[in-house]
Amino acid sequence: MKEGSTRRAPTSQPATPAAFEDLLNDWRERMERALAARLPASDVVPTRLHEAMRYSVLGGGKRIRSALVFATALTVGLTEGEVEAAACAIELVHAYSLVHDDLPAMDDDELRRGRPTCHRVFGEDVAILAGDALYAEAFRHLLTLQQDEPERVLAAAAELALATGVNGMVGGQYLDVYSNSAHEHGGGVDLRRVHELKTGRLIGASVTCVLLLAGAPEPATIAFRRFAAELGVLFQIVDDILDVTGTDAALGKPSGSDERHGRHTYVSEFGIKRARELAADSHSAARAALAQAASASVSAPGGPPPTELEQITDFIYTRSS
Amino acid sequence: MKEGSTRRAPTSQPATPAAFEDLLNDWRERMERALAARLPASDVVPTRLHEAMRYSVLGGGKRIRSALVFATALTVGLTEGEVEAAACAIELVHAYSLVHDDLPAMDDDELRRGRPTCHRVFGEDVAILAGDALYAEAFRHLLTLQQDEPERVLAAAAELALATGVNGMVGGQYLDVYSNSAHEHGGGVDLRRVHELKTGRLIGASVTCVLLLAGAPEPATIAFRRFAAELGVLFQIVDDILDVTGTDAALGKPSGSDERHGRHTYVSEFGIKRARELAADSHSAARAALAQAASASVSAPGGPPPTELEQITDFIYTRSS
Repeated sequence: MKEGSTRRAPTSQPATPAAFEDLLNDWRERMERALAARLPASDVVPTRLHEAMRYSVLGGGKRIRSALVFATALTVGLTEGEVEAAACAIELVHAYSLVHDDLPAMDDDELRRGRPTCHRVFGEDVAILAGDALYAEAFRHLLTLQQDEPERVLAAAAELALATGVNGMVGGQYLDVYSNSAHEHGGGVDLRRVHELKTGRLIGASVTCVLLLAGAPEPATIAFRRFAAELGVLFQIVDDILDVTGTDAALGKPSGSDERHGRHTYVSEFGIKRARELAADSHSAARAALAQAASASVSAPGGPPPTELEQITDFIYTRSS
Repeated sequence: MKEGSTRRAPTSQPATPAAFEDLLNDWRERMERALAARLPASDVVPTRLHEAMRYSVLGGGKRIRSALVFATALTVGLTEGEVEAAACAIELVHAYSLVHDDLPAMDDDELRRGRPTCHRVFGEDVAILAGDALYAEAFRHLLTLQQDEPERVLAAAAELALATGVNGMVGGQYLDVYSNSAHEHGGGVDLRRVHELKTGRLIGASVTCVLLLAGAPEPATIAFRRFAAELGVLFQIVDDILDVTGTDAALGKPSGSDERHGRHTYVSEFGIKRARELAADSHSAARAALAQAASASVSAPGGPPPTELEQITDFIYTRSS
């Protein structure tokens, strides 16, 4: 939707699932390289703080959020290079949130991605500061993105701030921790709301930040926003199911951790069978929202939904870790 | 230095110290009102998180950083209204840094501004999240500032990100905590460097963000940057002296806390007498840098240094709490 450009065909024909796996791997490798290059070097003072940041960010991960950034970029006619800073920013925010969530005062988790959590390796104080520093880095990279239209960068950065604050990730994490508390719910808990905030808003920002960077017109942005929100919900339902059905090795952390934390999840609330049905419903809703968003698109109005975003939606639904 | 405007005379004649105290009080009250209005309401879910944020931000404080924002605005021909979002952003960042610094895993402080610290009232998990949320709020307010020149807002926000990350506040806090550690210093510690990062960069950003919002030309920005850096050092030396000489009531926390934390301070390194001399030197250096910055100013080249910035420099030097 970048003015004067048309939607690029990323491959000469619709990617097969196997080809899409390759594309996901390419994006993942691109992201690892970009993050490794952008993070402060671990031989520069303060070395141990930098080490803790690199350890937390470069420890693997599925990089689903940055893949969403790249897939959306293809859809709106931006290159991967033009959104790399945004992709890095989103992954840095995600890493920061995991470091803080894992802290003893929060979830007190010992394993993440198959390795000891940041505070287990570097200490609690360094983990708090490493998280803080990663958040600052995220904004630094996004805000120094070179673009002809500064107001677009500004809009994308404001979106990231909103998605990660009280009305987004941090608010959701608070509600998740205190989901049993009478303080906030009078006993009840709106699970969908918690997850929309905790996970959904950052997943959503991976799509909407790119639309804003592309200067997409309002109707398209609104339609894609609906898709992005549903995708966040889908991601979380599947996450809850995998926490029960996944193996420790595949998850990189002990399965069943939600139950041990007394968390309200789709599985604890509805049982595994109903949770699977809800995931299927959410997957259909996300695909439908995407089709609608595509028809609101300016670059290819009425055209078919963007292949890569369809495929990533399917991938989020069918993933096993 | 805003194009087409000249430096406004904020008062009809140079403010006397008493009049300046009044101005400081006006700014402080303006800031309290602005922050109270901008922070999420404590009767909105998640209520307790919002309460913790409001408790941490609205608990008084000298508001020196926002006063610097307003004083710089007068100097470059911006109104207080035009920089209010930036002033709020800086105070929110400052509050977030205090909440995280006070945590048990960090300084483990129980009192701040004469009241129990955030984690003592709301718990450690809420304090971590409240800090995170305040940081997000800071960016949200700055990034949604309405201005004709979006690239100026972008530059100011990037400056804030830089000033608060590894090359600024967080890096400085890490070095301060680990200033005894062989990891980073081989035993030695560059005190000026630690404080430049931990305190100086945010004090400096209170000046430079405004210059960037005003679109000040590069030479003026560079000259004011030197002033701002020295002001940060002056602030910290005086802080170290007050920690030893101040009363608990005036400080709002037990005096002598630096010594109990085994902190390297200007007093522990050089003794109180030499620290006072260093403060006097730094004050002179800051005043000289300000005079030079004023002569590089475009709006009133060769003119006298801006009165309010002179007075705030004196205030930082002579303050008793």
